Amino acid sequence: MRIDIITLFPGMMESPFGHSIVKRALNAQLVEIHYHDLRQYALPPRKQVDDYPFGGGVGLVIKIEPIFKCITDLKRKRGYDDIIYFAPDGELLNQKMANYYSTKKNLLLLCGHYKGVDQRIRDHLITKEISVGDYVLSGGEIAATVFCDAIVRLIPGVLSDLSSALGDSFQDDLIEAPIYTRPRIFNNWKVPEVLLSGNQSKIDQWRDQMSLTNTKNKRPHLYEKSYVNDSQTSKDTSE
Amino acid sequence: MRIDIITLFPGMMESPFGHSIVKRALNAQLVEIHYHDLRQYALPPRKQVDDYPFGGGVGLVIKIEPIFKCITDLKRKRGYDDIIYFAPDGELLNQKMANYYSTKKNLLLLCGHYKGVDQRIRDHLITKEISVGDYVLSGGEIAATVFCDAIVRLIPGVLSDLSSALGDSFQDDLIEAPIYTRPRIFNNWKVPEVLLSGNQSKIDQWRDQMSLTNTKNKRPHLYEKSYVNDSQTSKDTSE
Repeated sequence: MRIDIITLFPGMMESPFGHSIVKRALNAQLVEIHYHDLRQYALPPRKQVDDYPFGGGVGLVIKIEPIFKCITDLKRKRGYDDIIYFAPDGELLNQKMANYYSTKKNLLLLCGHYKGVDQRIRDHLITKEISVGDYVLSGGEIAATVFCDAIVRLIPGVLSDLSSALGDSFQDDLIEAPIYTRPRIFNNWKVPEVLLSGNQSKIDQWRDQMSLTNTKNKRPHLYEKSYVNDSQTSKDTSE
Repeated sequence: MRIDIITLFPGMMESPFGHSIVKRALNAQLVEIHYHDLRQYALPPRKQVDDYPFGGGVGLVIKIEPIFKCITDLKRKRGYDDIIYFAPDGELLNQKMANYYSTKKNLLLLCGHYKGVDQRIRDHLITKEISVGDYVLSGGEIAATVFCDAIVRLIPGVLSDLSSALGDSFQDDLIEAPIYTRPRIFNNWKVPEVLLSGNQSKIDQWRDQMSLTNTKNKRPHLYEKSYVNDSQTSKDTSE
């Protein structure tokens, strides 16, 4: 997979992508990340990248010309599966969307900053708008970091054990069961007996039950979906 | 505000916090961020921080002892408003929660990695569990980056113009109206006439209308809430 990122702060994503899973994926050449500094596409002599909003108000808006030039240049070199802009009002990122994007070949990401980009960019050049949550960040760079991390770890070969990603929360719309490791007792806090029983079918049963209970309590909308799907499936097979 | 972050990858948050708004807040001493490397709290001789899960399964679990020691040490030095763990099944971060935490004095953040931390840490030491969205990240460090950015920009004095944060999307549960800057026409794409009219009351009216329409289309649950609140308020004042 190749990811191109257009940004005013190309250094901002360096350290999260220089550790852990994304670093491993980059080293294994399972993904390439290329940064494009928007300032280098600004028009001389002032090389201005932002300006005041029409109609008044505080905060600066990123100008249309440098973004247009950068996107046009990149599109001339390769086709992109999507040109993504990160905005608080974009479609909310979820695990299903992360799975979808982890199978793509070329992604172009545009990071806004300040009050965002001129709306005409969004209307005419962007093919997908994504939000990582219902809150405001100081720029799209942090949203791009979230997005890249969420999709890169799903690329086959990135995680050492494939089932490690498949067993994640949300992969089946359910939250994982609680996990424990040694010691068995710490500070008088004990690991649930069943996990020490060695009876794998009992352990699996307990995990499924905890997973359902957790989902019901913490993400009722996911539980609903999963429960309805399951009932549907059982019904279909029994008929 | 003082933020303490417990992590296995203390360098991971360096670059996002070294740019833009968080950098400005750090430089202005409006916030302090301190990293605590979990490996330094691991027990000799092996200094092991993770281990296999009880009951089988792939992926490693962060052990209880180093986290317990680190949190206990820090709590001895100061009181924390909350000890936060980032987990996919935590309460979903939203702007209201960001506002709430932006007023706090001491926050302690615990970043999980791999399959997460031993459940007993969550049950006995954590006072709040937060998720930045319904997707899985390779570690809590990226969630902590999101969380810190979202709250730090709201600390009074961090953004140059206070109203810049107040005018953000979600502050009134509504999405912002589209924004435009010069030039008026680019590639035959035009700025809406009203924004060039100089008639501020018409501009404000257009923005309110666009803001409502956008929210209704893109975040129906926020529109519902805002609409109900507004009707309620009008009713209350007219009676």
